[in-house]
Amino acid sequence: MLSGVHFQALPNIPEISPGDDLAAIISQALEDADLILEDTSVLVVAQKVVSKAEGRLVDLACVTPTPRATELARLTGKDSRLVELVLEESSDVLRAVPGVMIVRHRLGYVMANAGIDQSNLPDNASGQRALLLPRDPAASAQALSAGLETRQGTHPGIIISDSFGRPWRNGVVNVALASAGVPALIDQRSGTDRHGRTLHNTLIAHADAIAAGAALVMGEAGEGTPVAVVSGLSLSDTVVDASALIRPLESDLFQ
Amino acid sequence: MLSGVHFQALPNIPEISPGDDLAAIISQALEDADLILEDTSVLVVAQKVVSKAEGRLVDLACVTPTPRATELARLTGKDSRLVELVLEESSDVLRAVPGVMIVRHRLGYVMANAGIDQSNLPDNASGQRALLLPRDPAASAQALSAGLETRQGTHPGIIISDSFGRPWRNGVVNVALASAGVPALIDQRSGTDRHGRTLHNTLIAHADAIAAGAALVMGEAGEGTPVAVVSGLSLSDTVVDASALIRPLESDLFQ
Repeated sequence: MLSGVHFQALPNIPEISPGDDLAAIISQALEDADLILEDTSVLVVAQKVVSKAEGRLVDLACVTPTPRATELARLTGKDSRLVELVLEESSDVLRAVPGVMIVRHRLGYVMANAGIDQSNLPDNASGQRALLLPRDPAASAQALSAGLETRQGTHPGIIISDSFGRPWRNGVVNVALASAGVPALIDQRSGTDRHGRTLHNTLIAHADAIAAGAALVMGEAGEGTPVAVVSGLSLSDTVVDASALIRPLESDLFQ
Repeated sequence: MLSGVHFQALPNIPEISPGDDLAAIISQALEDADLILEDTSVLVVAQKVVSKAEGRLVDLACVTPTPRATELARLTGKDSRLVELVLEESSDVLRAVPGVMIVRHRLGYVMANAGIDQSNLPDNASGQRALLLPRDPAASAQALSAGLETRQGTHPGIIISDSFGRPWRNGVVNVALASAGVPALIDQRSGTDRHGRTLHNTLIAHADAIAAGAALVMGEAGEGTPVAVVSGLSLSDTVVDASALIRPLESDLFQ
């Protein structure tokens, strides 16, 4: 076995429907692929399949836009019912220009369109359906971890990932929306470097790095590989939840 | 051989000094570790060792701060000579508060302190030395790629990485400062999803994902592993330089 960190796509995950037991489906896929999880394994699971299993699919025909949504729809050129959903999911609109709304999601993430997605949904070529983020992604990660522990007898880390746009840099990267059993943030601020100098500001977004790397095997478009198995990670640091990755408004120096 | 993407730290890279031939040193370390590069291999190299090899180390005793640097030093609580270097390396100061300067580096990166670093430098426990970014990281990546091709007979991709802080999210992640032979940005905007719907806004920051994943084996603090070897990547997309990852000011929707 090579040393290092290995990312592998989990094959044969079927299309996920509301009510599906994701832990059972992933467990079956692991067995079909002859993959044995270890206690240091991490599963990166695309938010999309968690949301689908939790029935977070909304039919736009059932959404009535408020006047504010109608106004923002005019400004952004978006469907007013989609804008209504974005507003319902958000605590603040940071930016609304043609084509884009950047909002603070009610859970704290700053992201485009409150993470609401219209791609890779069945029967949605016409864009009449939209998928919201899980209601409580941290709870989803915990439930998935517990479900896998029951079925596999091991305690893998879980990261629920989503792709985010970023200020100042082109392109999306995967980040950790939520996690369980993983050190999401590693604090090396009290350590020293190789030459004895105290390290400042070395707070490492570990779960985001894992999520970003996982995107290399999960794909973004039509690949249908929403789960990656990561092995070889050092998970010896204190476990902190991915909510620690959300920078509190009052200390955000980039605002 | 497992399918998937594998990240491995390259052991036994010595302390790098000005004038060192980094391609020769990496080549030797690859041979010592019995690692054979393939044409689809990517080497992620920490900016720090590139800068050290290029002699970008500055003795603060030789820096004379301008009045503006002195003023910003008072505001931020930083050494005025360090602030002077930050200003010399930057085209714009976006934010200066106690402890932090966020600037636009002359090469376009928006980052803390123009990427100037005082950790992991020899004889620097007192903080009298500072390391600037390479003068032209894209040229450094090309030179490293050419040097390795000469020595190894293969044409690996090169990413020069650095850890960046981020708006809205805690912790640093590795990003690609520069690249050679790698599709830094993959454009899937004209593709369709699995259900036939056209994908919008799916522009993937591929080189940043590789750099982020590499941090999992390179470490941030005292590990002394500034090079990661990445295998199993699909590099079939069009090669675009990591400069494509810098979002032009006029289209930055997050400003």
